This record gives sequence, structure tokens and C-alpha cells, in this order.
Amino acid sequence: MMYNENAITAFERRYRANFINSLGGFKSLVLIVTKNSDGSENLATLSSLFHLGADPALCGIVLRPATMFSSTLDNILDQKWYTINHVSPAFVHQAHQCSAKYPKGVSEFEKVGLTPEYLEEIPVPFVGESKIKFACNFVQKTAIELNGTTLIIGRITTAFVPDDYIKADGYIDIEEAGTVTTSGLDSYHTTSRIERLPYARP
Amino acid sequence: MMYNENAITAFERRYRANFINSLGGFKSLVLIVTKNSDGSENLATLSSLFHLGADPALCGIVLRPATMFSSTLDNILDQKWYTINHVSPAFVHQAHQCSAKYPKGVSEFEKVGLTPEYLEEIPVPFVGESKIKFACNFVQKTAIELNGTTLIIGRITTAFVPDDYIKADGYIDIEEAGTVTTSGLDSYHTTSRIERLPYARP
Repeated sequence: MMYNENAITAFERRYRANFINSLGGFKSLVLIVTKNSDGSENLATLSSLFHLGADPALCGIVLRPATMFSSTLDNILDQKWYTINHVSPAFVHQAHQCSAKYPKGVSEFEKVGLTPEYLEEIPVPFVGESKIKFACNFVQKTAIELNGTTLIIGRITTAFVPDDYIKADGYIDIEEAGTVTTSGLDSYHTTSRIERLPYARP
Repeated sequence: MMYNENAITAFERRYRANFINSLGGFKSLVLIVTKNSDGSENLATLSSLFHLGADPALCGIVLRPATMFSSTLDNILDQKWYTINHVSPAFVHQAHQCSAKYPKGVSEFEKVGLTPEYLEEIPVPFVGESKIKFACNFVQKTAIELNGTTLIIGRITTAFVPDDYIKADGYIDIEEAGTVTTSGLDSYHTTSRIERLPYARP
């Protein structure tokens, strides 16, 4: 029931990862696409996307250091562009498979069976299967020295959203669009609306 | 369907806020509790929580500048402690009401009808109605100069999770616990598991 810092530190490594990753609640599940310096396409699952502001439109992501298996961070710093793509139930398995450690230069698009889609002269492809997606341009990074991760902040430059899902007040009904949410490291969920509530006043 | 940066900038302010806030996908919905320097309790809704690491256990949040209505940021920098509390469908209305701009010194606990709960000598209360909750200790802040927000990173020091929801591998079944997710600025959702998938290998 109660787990203090010593108890959490004493957890087996994988047990602790599952525990702490679920503790923060439901997360946005997206696919992030970048390009390597040799022009090859890189696709990865991401659950650390967060909203930073609407004016200007900014979002943040947390990335681990680049390794021989993961080049997303290097690609963003090098190429400046990346795309963020929502996941639908129809390709949850493919999305999850993008978390596997493929060697650099191997195209995850081919390996998992998703389709790169180039739109509006943005130099990095989107995921063709995604209904809602947007392009980001690198703005700033912050090193988190405590664990070697990097916070990347990007400007949202172009959004693709089917008009049917956009309500009169600008709200995008991502539930109607079938956008999936995630918990922990490996659990995927659809949603059921409780309700939308009016602007709260004291 | 396609919205470029000029189109997004030209949106009416509230419309843009709804649009950009929903674009990022489903978010963690939590209540954050802090204490003012006079000892009064402050309760606010938060949808910007993100996972930063499991070893050490770290999480991040995005906060706006402190104003006469919102003192969460000042309280964290001043008192160093805060608690993060999951929201269940039974008190979604109260949680939403915590986003109203109450003047400083007014206790949101009293105004919205939730219960402060002091546990394990942590100097800031939890939300009694929350099933899953944890305490954080301030670690570092990063100013986002582009829009005046602040990223706060905290160490997860103590977690309270009913044992029934903790699976053999450390995963916390937050869906079974009834944890709510949010989209946009005002939409609340329960979830239905699609599935948990095994660790992905190439």
C-alpha cells in the first residue's frame, strides 16, 4: 500500500520500471518520425509527449540518449524536423513493435508494416495510417543530468486533422477519431467520454 | 484538414487553446496539492504530468507563472514538497472545479468539497478521495522563455497504491483503479484496455 523511496529503490529493475511508468496515469501514445543524416527514416513509439502552450503552439518530449539502436535524439538535433502521429486500435501492434531495438539504418516502417507519407514539403514523413498528426520544428533542448535524458521542445508547424473531428469550439474529438492512450510500458486503451465540462468559475 | 502555422496563429484565442490542447492526445489528469507560505493548502488540476525516469523515480510538470489566482509554482519553489493525486469518475466534477481561479488563501479543498489527508509525515496533504497518489520533492526547474512557463522536475519519494491494483510484474492497473484521463481543456474519459503486449523484439 505505502512505498517509500527505499522500497521503490529496492524494487527489481523491470518491476520498478513498470510501477513508476504506471504511477503517472494515462499517457499520450504517438509515433515519432525522424530522419537519419543518411536520409533513412526512423520511427519510434513515444509516451512522453506533453502540452507546453498554444500561443505559440509548443510541445515537449523526453528522449533517452542516442545509442546504436535509437537515433531519434540525434536526428532531431541534426535535422530539426520531426512528426508526431496518433495511434488507432487498428495498428496498435505495429506501433508497439516500433519500440523494438532495430539497428540504425533499418527502416522501422518496413519492419513493422506502416506507411511513410510525405505531406506539404515537410522533410520528414508522417505515418500514413494515422488520422491525426502534426509536424514539429526543434526549438530548444534541456539536459536532465540526473538520468541522462533530454527534454526537447518543438514548435507545432502543421497539423493534419480530419474536419469531422473538429468541434465548433476548436476541440478535436480524439476519442471519436479512435486515438489510443497508454499506461505503464505496454498497456493500450481506448476511451469512453464521461463528459465535457463548462469553463470552471469560482 | 491541413492547418499550417499561419492558420493556427489566426485561430481565435480560445479556439486555438482547445485545438492545440487536444492535438497532443490523451493526458494524465491529476490533482496537485501544495502549501502556501502561510500554511494554507492549495489544490489545482494538472494535465501536464510526464514520466522522466524510473531510477531514480522522477516526473515532470509544466506550470504557468504564479499569479494572484495560482500559487502552485511559488509554493513548490518555496516549500519543495507537492503531492500528485489520481482522479476517479466519482469526483471528476470536483477535480474540474479546482481549475477555477480562486483567490490565494482560499482553500480549494473546502470550496470544491474534497478532503485533505496527511500521510507519513509528508508536509503537504494528499487528496483523501484519490486511490493512487504520490509525494514529490522538488529537484530542478527550467524556464521556457518562449511562453513564460516553467518545467518542474521532482523526485517521487512516497507512493500510495492499493495492493489489489499492483500486478506481479509491478504494473499498476490504473484502469481497474478507475483513473480518469483527459483530452483538450475540459473532456474527461474512462478507458477500456485493448491489451498489454509483450516486450517488443526485432
